Amino acid sequence: MAFSPRLTGLIDALKCMPGVGQKSAQRIAFHLLERDRSGAASLSDALKSAVESIGHCKRCRMLTENELCAICESSGRDVQQLCVVESPADVMALEDATGYRGLYFVLMGHLSPLDGIGPAELGLDMLEARLAEGEVSELIIATNPTVEGDATAHYLSDLAERNGVNASRIAHGVPLGGELEYVDGGTLSHAFYGRRAVNEGR
Amino acid sequence: MAFSPRLTGLIDALKCMPGVGQKSAQRIAFHLLERDRSGAASLSDALKSAVESIGHCKRCRMLTENELCAICESSGRDVQQLCVVESPADVMALEDATGYRGLYFVLMGHLSPLDGIGPAELGLDMLEARLAEGEVSELIIATNPTVEGDATAHYLSDLAERNGVNASRIAHGVPLGGELEYVDGGTLSHAFYGRRAVNEGR
Repeated sequence: MAFSPRLTGLIDALKCMPGVGQKSAQRIAFHLLERDRSGAASLSDALKSAVESIGHCKRCRMLTENELCAICESSGRDVQQLCVVESPADVMALEDATGYRGLYFVLMGHLSPLDGIGPAELGLDMLEARLAEGEVSELIIATNPTVEGDATAHYLSDLAERNGVNASRIAHGVPLGGELEYVDGGTLSHAFYGRRAVNEGR
Repeated sequence: MAFSPRLTGLIDALKCMPGVGQKSAQRIAFHLLERDRSGAASLSDALKSAVESIGHCKRCRMLTENELCAICESSGRDVQQLCVVESPADVMALEDATGYRGLYFVLMGHLSPLDGIGPAELGLDMLEARLAEGEVSELIIATNPTVEGDATAHYLSDLAERNGVNASRIAHGVPLGGELEYVDGGTLSHAFYGRRAVNEGR
């Protein structure tokens, strides 16, 4: 190894990021040291302060450094709608793409008994208590269309039913701009059997 | 923007890395905060200490936190051979792939007059002084086979000649395992005209 201990240390530390192996870590380390030392210094500070202060929103489990996240704190959101997602990135995606003005609940994962992730780890007791309060009238289930996401969605719809709350799940089907020919069989079958009337009762 | 200020700050700071845009930065931030906080904390420390302490080797310009890099300091290297490369990553690549036991000189770039990078920025005055000392008998030029790398190589061979030092350049041609059919024209032409006798004088 031709590198000095601290350079080796930096390269190893960079590998904690997903998708970054030895080669990418070297490239990043050289780029930062040769061309962007101020960027590296700010990154160091941002990481430190994020790790020290960012926790979960007390109400929706979103990542935030405050007691409540910006969405839960906002007075302009519809408290009757609650959308359940698996991760903070999903909140961001929905906020960017839709005009949804309700609140969110972030599971930070999905049910996965083999990994020891049950309802308690996903904060579902917290969610149940919230549904029992009676403020929420619609639970929008937006977990991923994967095996675990489906199982989680099923559990969530049972939870809603037990608490007398309407539950809905976001639609799955052929993506916009996609061509039927290239869509995978599972999605196509889902889209076909989940077809909706377009001229009902005309 | 649905994220809290510190989370947004972390995502922005992560974008200082090459090849990391908004989406990757989000993915990295969530991964670190949800799954690897200790990794993030060590990365913060490693970045801080690297930025504060890593400079250039006084003799070869390699990145190191010490006065001299490990290679220059080693007593087991052949001081008569000096290999000139463009970047620290090239030193690493040569160390890994070859049994070379000489020393290196790292330009940290290549001649690029339009960007204001001339001989002084590449430490070529330092290199000339070293060649003038008379210890080096062979200058191995291993700059990249690009337009700028070739210009730099040309400058380096002149420098060697002025100081009565033999200069050589690493061979360029068809890569091992490559098929002629798929090699680009420039490389193939280079390989063809740079052909070497295999049974000289038999």
